[in-house]
Amino acid sequence: MKKSVNVPFEQPDKGAGGDCNINHILQSCGTLAGNIREDALLMAFCAGAGAAHLGGGLSHIDILSVLYGTVMKHNSDNPEWDERDRFILSKGHGVLGYYGALCETGYIPREELFGFEKSGSDLLGHPVKNLKKGIEATTGSLGQGLSLGIGMALGLKEQGKSSKVYVLLGDGECNEGSVWEAFMSASQYKMDNITAIIDRNHFQLGGDTKDVMDVGNISDKIRAFGWEVREVDGHNIKEVYEAFKKPREEDKPLAIVADTVKGYGFSFCEGNNAYHHAVVTKDLYETGMRELGKECDPDSIRKKAEEWKENHSAYLKKYKSHIKKSQIENKITVTKQLARRWSMVGQRAAFGLAVMEIAPDNPKLKVLTADVSSSAGLERLKKTYPDKFLDAGIAEQNMMGIASGYSQTGYDVITATFAPFQSMRCLEQIRVNMGYMGSKVIMVGLAGGLVLGTLGNTHCCFEDIGVLRSIPNIAVISPADSCEVGKALEAALKTDMSVYIRLLGGSGCPVIYTEDYNFEIGKAVIIKGDLEKENNDVVLIASGTMVNESVKAFELLAEKGISSVVVNMHTIKPIDKDTILKAVGNSKVIVTVEEHNKYGGLSTAVSEVLVENGGFSKFISIGLPDEYGCGGDYKDLLELYGLTGGSIADKVIENL
Amino acid sequence: MKKSVNVPFEQPDKGAGGDCNINHILQSCGTLAGNIREDALLMAFCAGAGAAHLGGGLSHIDILSVLYGTVMKHNSDNPEWDERDRFILSKGHGVLGYYGALCETGYIPREELFGFEKSGSDLLGHPVKNLKKGIEATTGSLGQGLSLGIGMALGLKEQGKSSKVYVLLGDGECNEGSVWEAFMSASQYKMDNITAIIDRNHFQLGGDTKDVMDVGNISDKIRAFGWEVREVDGHNIKEVYEAFKKPREEDKPLAIVADTVKGYGFSFCEGNNAYHHAVVTKDLYETGMRELGKECDPDSIRKKAEEWKENHSAYLKKYKSHIKKSQIENKITVTKQLARRWSMVGQRAAFGLAVMEIAPDNPKLKVLTADVSSSAGLERLKKTYPDKFLDAGIAEQNMMGIASGYSQTGYDVITATFAPFQSMRCLEQIRVNMGYMGSKVIMVGLAGGLVLGTLGNTHCCFEDIGVLRSIPNIAVISPADSCEVGKALEAALKTDMSVYIRLLGGSGCPVIYTEDYNFEIGKAVIIKGDLEKENNDVVLIASGTMVNESVKAFELLAEKGISSVVVNMHTIKPIDKDTILKAVGNSKVIVTVEEHNKYGGLSTAVSEVLVENGGFSKFISIGLPDEYGCGGDYKDLLELYGLTGGSIADKVIENL
Repeated sequence: MKKSVNVPFEQPDKGAGGDCNINHILQSCGTLAGNIREDALLMAFCAGAGAAHLGGGLSHIDILSVLYGTVMKHNSDNPEWDERDRFILSKGHGVLGYYGALCETGYIPREELFGFEKSGSDLLGHPVKNLKKGIEATTGSLGQGLSLGIGMALGLKEQGKSSKVYVLLGDGECNEGSVWEAFMSASQYKMDNITAIIDRNHFQLGGDTKDVMDVGNISDKIRAFGWEVREVDGHNIKEVYEAFKKPREEDKPLAIVADTVKGYGFSFCEGNNAYHHAVVTKDLYETGMRELGKECDPDSIRKKAEEWKENHSAYLKKYKSHIKKSQIENKITVTKQLARRWSMVGQRAAFGLAVMEIAPDNPKLKVLTADVSSSAGLERLKKTYPDKFLDAGIAEQNMMGIASGYSQTGYDVITATFAPFQSMRCLEQIRVNMGYMGSKVIMVGLAGGLVLGTLGNTHCCFEDIGVLRSIPNIAVISPADSCEVGKALEAALKTDMSVYIRLLGGSGCPVIYTEDYNFEIGKAVIIKGDLEKENNDVVLIASGTMVNESVKAFELLAEKGISSVVVNMHTIKPIDKDTILKAVGNSKVIVTVEEHNKYGGLSTAVSEVLVENGGFSKFISIGLPDEYGCGGDYKDLLELYGLTGGSIADKVIENL
Repeated sequence: MKKSVNVPFEQPDKGAGGDCNINHILQSCGTLAGNIREDALLMAFCAGAGAAHLGGGLSHIDILSVLYGTVMKHNSDNPEWDERDRFILSKGHGVLGYYGALCETGYIPREELFGFEKSGSDLLGHPVKNLKKGIEATTGSLGQGLSLGIGMALGLKEQGKSSKVYVLLGDGECNEGSVWEAFMSASQYKMDNITAIIDRNHFQLGGDTKDVMDVGNISDKIRAFGWEVREVDGHNIKEVYEAFKKPREEDKPLAIVADTVKGYGFSFCEGNNAYHHAVVTKDLYETGMRELGKECDPDSIRKKAEEWKENHSAYLKKYKSHIKKSQIENKITVTKQLARRWSMVGQRAAFGLAVMEIAPDNPKLKVLTADVSSSAGLERLKKTYPDKFLDAGIAEQNMMGIASGYSQTGYDVITATFAPFQSMRCLEQIRVNMGYMGSKVIMVGLAGGLVLGTLGNTHCCFEDIGVLRSIPNIAVISPADSCEVGKALEAALKTDMSVYIRLLGGSGCPVIYTEDYNFEIGKAVIIKGDLEKENNDVVLIASGTMVNESVKAFELLAEKGISSVVVNMHTIKPIDKDTILKAVGNSKVIVTVEEHNKYGGLSTAVSEVLVENGGFSKFISIGLPDEYGCGGDYKDLLELYGLTGGSIADKVIENL
């Protein structure tokens, strides 16, 4: 393994050599840049007909050479070194230069370059988090890296670490609004340990940035958002070095706008956007190597790439999703008194109270909101434990990125905002950060269902479960009452995956639990009746507030001599298959009841289990129709849609 | 019905009275503002214990009085007047002042104010599009109105209309990155018929904007994004009037930053954020009316509110979702030649070619991308019909808002970007604009499934169908081959709802259709075998590229004497229930095959039908596991996950 540079071992400002030393450093960065460029071209050539993001993979190499060559504290002998600086390639398609830098500094074995973008390779066309290889973050969807970096930088600073965070963005990437959310927030948080570098290569996929969507004077824009901005020639190593090293303004984030040339380093692709994503033929490879003043043997390289493919096809393996059921300890114990107190305030305030129970013993807790601290019952937390609270403003995408960054630096992170904004406004951030990268965050969706009906459907939410059930690695929980909110929150903190907790109902939320019970993610609870008994007439499988309505239905049915069971299916993903199958065995009719679109939620999850296992009792789905209905008072809407105990009972009787 | 002001009938700069006339106008605006304030307080009082967004519903009233009183062209006798100016309340919670303005200018009957936020009322806590009542847009989720307004303004201008678009935003709302995407794009498009007004009341839900997320010098920020900015005292009617009326810079969008006081007009709530969302008691109502110098009778008002509730509970009604199946005409006819040509280029390029077929005869066509025109096969359209093409840059949220605005002004709108960014990055915009408001847009998700596996999972997409199936009013189509892409696009243009078209596969996409056939949204096509025949062994229900693999499986099964049927279930929502039920009746095993997460997509949609109808053949779901697997070459991944003809046949044989 080649290890031309591995820092920290040359810190020019600490050395005794003065200018001489600096010159040495700059020279070694220049050499590093050349080597990275060679690696980049090699990988692009190895990608063959699959093509590679060449232009944007070359423009930032001089910057990377300065970062990895001298500016950043890092150590490839100990890649997970706690005190390391962090680098995030927000413009995730710029992997050629990035993997090259990681190879030249000892993180990625040289032979792996031949496998670039091949099946089973760790070096895909966009970075996938892999600390052993020095890759801090999964990126590829533009406009997410700066938020993530802010979260990391906040986390590191609060842990007293001197580590800095560097985030490299493309200029085209700055079209994304999420980037401006991040700029605004870093300034608000007075962050002095984050540096954003804009690789201003003047092109994006569609052409000149001026023509597609002009970021214009990007320095002025970023300055207007409260950052210190330095402009440099991104291919002048000395200028880049000085931009990183000059003392920075106090309490301000720093952006370095680096004027660069897309495709820099090779005559055929410099400033030529046709090479945004292009094939590097044998001819081009030879030309490029000649221009670097280096020898090459393209045939042997192509052969190695082919061999890599053959040898590594066995590496294709399924990743196991890491759902772990969790049993909670009795930090929050349900007593009659607690049940009474929490039920009066509703699920949202109960969430705030549960957080207050958890906070004192959890030094790693971070609770984030998007300007809804009072609506989320978090005012007490904010006042009592200001260091455990962060407001991201009305910027849900940025909130999720920051949450991910905190999670990556070891915090237990909870985010909370109204359900549609918590689930749908930031869905791609959830997908990439919590789903793909596996950052663990507990997402609390406030006021799901129809409770905000008077405010119109923008503030109702009956799509969230369907939407989030589609994303791997996220558990979905809908507590039945205020006590279960606390239980769910504790369980979610203990499991090792991200969890969405959907809060429902208004104040005076009916009580289901008045004494302690065992809450386990993915394990349903029998609330009424005896599921073990054969020949039940009906099993009502409900979630959220509909558990209470199902209890009412249970009683109405009992009056008519109909035997039923009420199951609280608090976890909709992963769903409790055993309980569903037992219900199939021991009843005539299965009914699901939910305050959610009939498509995508509990009814759908139960349907999937039923057909997978073949054969089932009669099935009835009670939920919301697939439409944006009229708004109005919560109780009126529940009545309208048949989501009351009486309507549920009637529907069962009709179908028996 | 009270009609104190109804314009256009007083255009001061056209009048003969000079200053005298202007003073008269300003005075009448002042009177209007007072009346609006009275209405606002009335509604808040009528909301009773439900509370209302009082502070932010009052701060913009002087601005509204100038807009509705004199600046805007509008006519409540003809609310849908084609030449009217458009107003969008982007800060959707500001309804009190907005409904007040619409009442005072003749759009909303006074008696409806008593029903504010009541069940069945058209006047919910956030505006729901209702042209007859003067409400242009559904808002409530912050940060969406400006994009929508830009789309409308572009549409109106291109139709040669002199109509202007006014969008009112909150200062807190400017936390949202989507707002900055919109600012950037309006400047790029050199828009001179849109005006954004920032109601700078210095508060957001969580407190002072400085403390929550400081928008700081918002004028500087907006200026840095290329807008002309004017600052005014938002309660000085003359200043506001002049800000609207002064000649504006050429080819530049205009923002008016209006310094306002939250809760302006009533002593008890001025500058007091406790009244962000608050109950107006009888005492407060009386106080407020006294401060307006007006008489009041709170008891009679409360009684009217109660009566309204009783009388209007009957108004609670279900909204029908407006899915309409569509049969296409033969604009694009599948011939062997076309099949050969289009199949060679793959579904993405075929999409571009289909658009080129459609473009000449469709004067209303608008195709939008987010900086991926070449990837979407749209370069020819961009060159040939530049007026039918718009690039929103890498800003998917803004793209969907603009698409919605174009749709609202009568265009046939298609958007296209890579599937994860088309479905998940802008999901809440899709939900509010296409789902709730019903703007019709055809959304084309490029390179769904695993085809971009070498680029990593950020660029793969196996969640899109599950995610979009959860949103009402959107059809979901996954064409089986390139020819069907064209058919689907034509059908989508003809139906009356939004459609998501998921493109799959790379170049050299296998051909399913070599001759013409009837494509109908929601109607499956039998590709192989005879579904009418009883006692089929297997029915393979497939979508997208998996139709071709199922055809291979069909042949392998036939070799072993197993009779099967291949169904192309191109539309996953609304799903073709009849065909599924026929399959149940006439086969031993039903198999779904899809390049999508097993949760949420085709398998799930078929499961829902199966359990809804009770009783079914054995069911097997073949799709992707619920996990982010390793990346790699498309073919390798299909092999790995058993998505090839051979694996499908094996799985069937195992299960027979």
